[in-house]
Amino acid sequence: MNETNPQRGNRLDPWLDSYATRAYGLRESETRSLFAVASRPEVVSLAGGMPNLKDLPLDELAEATARMIRKDGGRALQYGNGQGLPRLREQIPEVMALEGIDADPEDVVITTGSQQAVDIVTELFIDPGDVILTEAPTYVGSLSIFSTYQADVQQAPIDADGVIPEALEQTITDLERQGRHVKFFYCLPNFHNPAGVSLSEERRPQVIEICRRHHILIIEDNPYGLLDFEGRTHTALKTLAPDDVVYLGSFSKIFAPGYRVGWAVAPPAVREKMKLASEAAILCPSSVGQFSISNYLDNFDWRGQIQDFRTMYRRRRDAMVDALSEFMPMCTWNVPEGGFYVWVGLPEGLDAKEMLPRAVTNLVAYVSGTAFYAGGRAGRDHMRLSFCYPEPVDIREGVRRLSEVVTHDLELVNLFGPACQRPSGGVSAPSPDQV
Amino acid sequence: MNETNPQRGNRLDPWLDSYATRAYGLRESETRSLFAVASRPEVVSLAGGMPNLKDLPLDELAEATARMIRKDGGRALQYGNGQGLPRLREQIPEVMALEGIDADPEDVVITTGSQQAVDIVTELFIDPGDVILTEAPTYVGSLSIFSTYQADVQQAPIDADGVIPEALEQTITDLERQGRHVKFFYCLPNFHNPAGVSLSEERRPQVIEICRRHHILIIEDNPYGLLDFEGRTHTALKTLAPDDVVYLGSFSKIFAPGYRVGWAVAPPAVREKMKLASEAAILCPSSVGQFSISNYLDNFDWRGQIQDFRTMYRRRRDAMVDALSEFMPMCTWNVPEGGFYVWVGLPEGLDAKEMLPRAVTNLVAYVSGTAFYAGGRAGRDHMRLSFCYPEPVDIREGVRRLSEVVTHDLELVNLFGPACQRPSGGVSAPSPDQV
Repeated sequence: MNETNPQRGNRLDPWLDSYATRAYGLRESETRSLFAVASRPEVVSLAGGMPNLKDLPLDELAEATARMIRKDGGRALQYGNGQGLPRLREQIPEVMALEGIDADPEDVVITTGSQQAVDIVTELFIDPGDVILTEAPTYVGSLSIFSTYQADVQQAPIDADGVIPEALEQTITDLERQGRHVKFFYCLPNFHNPAGVSLSEERRPQVIEICRRHHILIIEDNPYGLLDFEGRTHTALKTLAPDDVVYLGSFSKIFAPGYRVGWAVAPPAVREKMKLASEAAILCPSSVGQFSISNYLDNFDWRGQIQDFRTMYRRRRDAMVDALSEFMPMCTWNVPEGGFYVWVGLPEGLDAKEMLPRAVTNLVAYVSGTAFYAGGRAGRDHMRLSFCYPEPVDIREGVRRLSEVVTHDLELVNLFGPACQRPSGGVSAPSPDQV
Repeated sequence: MNETNPQRGNRLDPWLDSYATRAYGLRESETRSLFAVASRPEVVSLAGGMPNLKDLPLDELAEATARMIRKDGGRALQYGNGQGLPRLREQIPEVMALEGIDADPEDVVITTGSQQAVDIVTELFIDPGDVILTEAPTYVGSLSIFSTYQADVQQAPIDADGVIPEALEQTITDLERQGRHVKFFYCLPNFHNPAGVSLSEERRPQVIEICRRHHILIIEDNPYGLLDFEGRTHTALKTLAPDDVVYLGSFSKIFAPGYRVGWAVAPPAVREKMKLASEAAILCPSSVGQFSISNYLDNFDWRGQIQDFRTMYRRRRDAMVDALSEFMPMCTWNVPEGGFYVWVGLPEGLDAKEMLPRAVTNLVAYVSGTAFYAGGRAGRDHMRLSFCYPEPVDIREGVRRLSEVVTHDLELVNLFGPACQRPSGGVSAPSPDQV
């Protein structure tokens, strides 16, 4: 919206004067506004984070769902309890056990995707102006929630091993020197969105020690942790510090997002408040969705399915990094060991945000790095490329098309100088080689 | 929670000092805390608002769902768009047409139950301390949301014809005299929860005229509008004033709540913000849920099903008012023409909140009227009795058990004087004969 000057209504919006302060911060996210463009069939979208579901056994799922409705329909179609279906709360720790996490079903709160869990935890902890610390860059969907709650988002830089402990501590200390306490550190330790990196094993206890010393709660958002291409797992922050971490998990990437079922595991007092906040917001998560997921975990080889997903996504990662090597030697990138994303650094002087319309004209889409920084303070020198959804052959073609755009922009820069507006130098701007 | 004095953590909750101001207002609602008790099989629960789903054709639904997953599984299991499935947004106006409402699919925002729609609209309009006007009494679930957003809830009394226009105007004028503007009027015009009454046709334009004159947005919450026992409908406020009303609908009572699919129809500028707020909170509503509902509307006689629900609920309403006449002549009540609830006035001196544990001991549950007033300012002289879920024979037995408790309490009052703490005289206290 462009209307930032409240007044007593107007012909376009008679309620313009009535909105809450937070409503003025609502805007179409950069990822969201791309959805319409990227869904045109002729565009290769390297933008979205949609999982590839083609290998799910739809016929068997159809049959199993029918059996579930016949047997449990009376409960599956009814209201459930706010904390979530007890049976599913028992099964979720089995999923978490694959990453070595020991969770108590009592501490699980099931949510409408883990997005709702981020929403609730922000609702519980953030008054307007409170400080949230995130990695720089961080997940655009969480930034959007933090903005809704009028948080002051500060970001600490990451490198190939995740957030840099010294920089994390420095950021916190600088804030404390200004009399500002960080409410929580929101962290994506595994196969980071958008940066593709993971927090190294060495740094995990360091991050916890820093947060503990400064009395900062950790929100560990882990949708991709089981999608390591070699089947390895990392030690969860939750495992290292159960009382200091609210852990967020999701079925969206290891099964299917259409059920909108995610979860949080929180220390008991926080869990209790999360349950109440979720009840207030939605009464209860979808019973049909929860019964369906529970049914899937009971009757399908879900561990084998995760293994299949890993293999499938590894092929796509390979297709992407091969194509980058072939077509984009002028750029830098990491080789992610899991998850959905490659974080591509542009040559000096190029601007990912300004380049995007030219890319779409050339029938390829990505997300500008600016989407992943609070207040658009940085990120013009990076693009997030997703390899999760398109077929390998399309990934290659998409990168090829993108390389034409980069090459063209680079020629312009060499002729006329940089179009790129450099990051404005906030606390949080990482240098291009940090990821 | 009892901890209202923030401090730097404690052994029970190390994060006690970190919560946002709004989190201190979170508490188990009176309805919610009853769920555990009321679900014991030996208790007749006249407390919950769960619809009765026994007559839904589960086998056919199972088959239809299986066909849907086979055909549309690739999309139904995937992320959808934040505003909701386009096909379902086209079908929802067909449902609304049964009440004579002309809605544009473009203005429909699909939500996780209409509860989420109340949450979003409150998020959009309410800064802490802003005034929301509701009927007295009003839906407990919305009060819980309003409290989360730290609203100042003011309530205007109702009588057998719904909210009293003169009282509504007086409440608004009194507030304006204190320099306080009402942000929105939250209204349940049809088969009110908990009071069972409907706003009369005569009063509807009056209410709109008052709100319009004071520039107050109307939130019209209408989950029960199609459940008139004679099949009649009321004129929607949305029909009378499309630009002044955010209309909320739900499939929970006319089909099944387990899908968690509700919707809002809002003026375009408000709709646009609601969409963004919903995307921030949950990305998108459940695709599986939306495809299932869409499939149901396409392939089942949903109008016939609503007619069956009406007949079934009318029988239960009859069972309840018959039992009240037989066993509870010492009380007052209305005879609702639709919906789920009877609002029962207790004899002078009795206290619905204090009596509840004795009722549960006598194996019957209800909701104390206090749940439906902001700040517990009133309602001790009323009980909400639900006739939606138990069988007629159980309704009769429940009322009989309840009559024993009332009779017992009445004897005590006659011997020792009233236990009832009278309403503390806020703006909002209605007299017992107003409903």
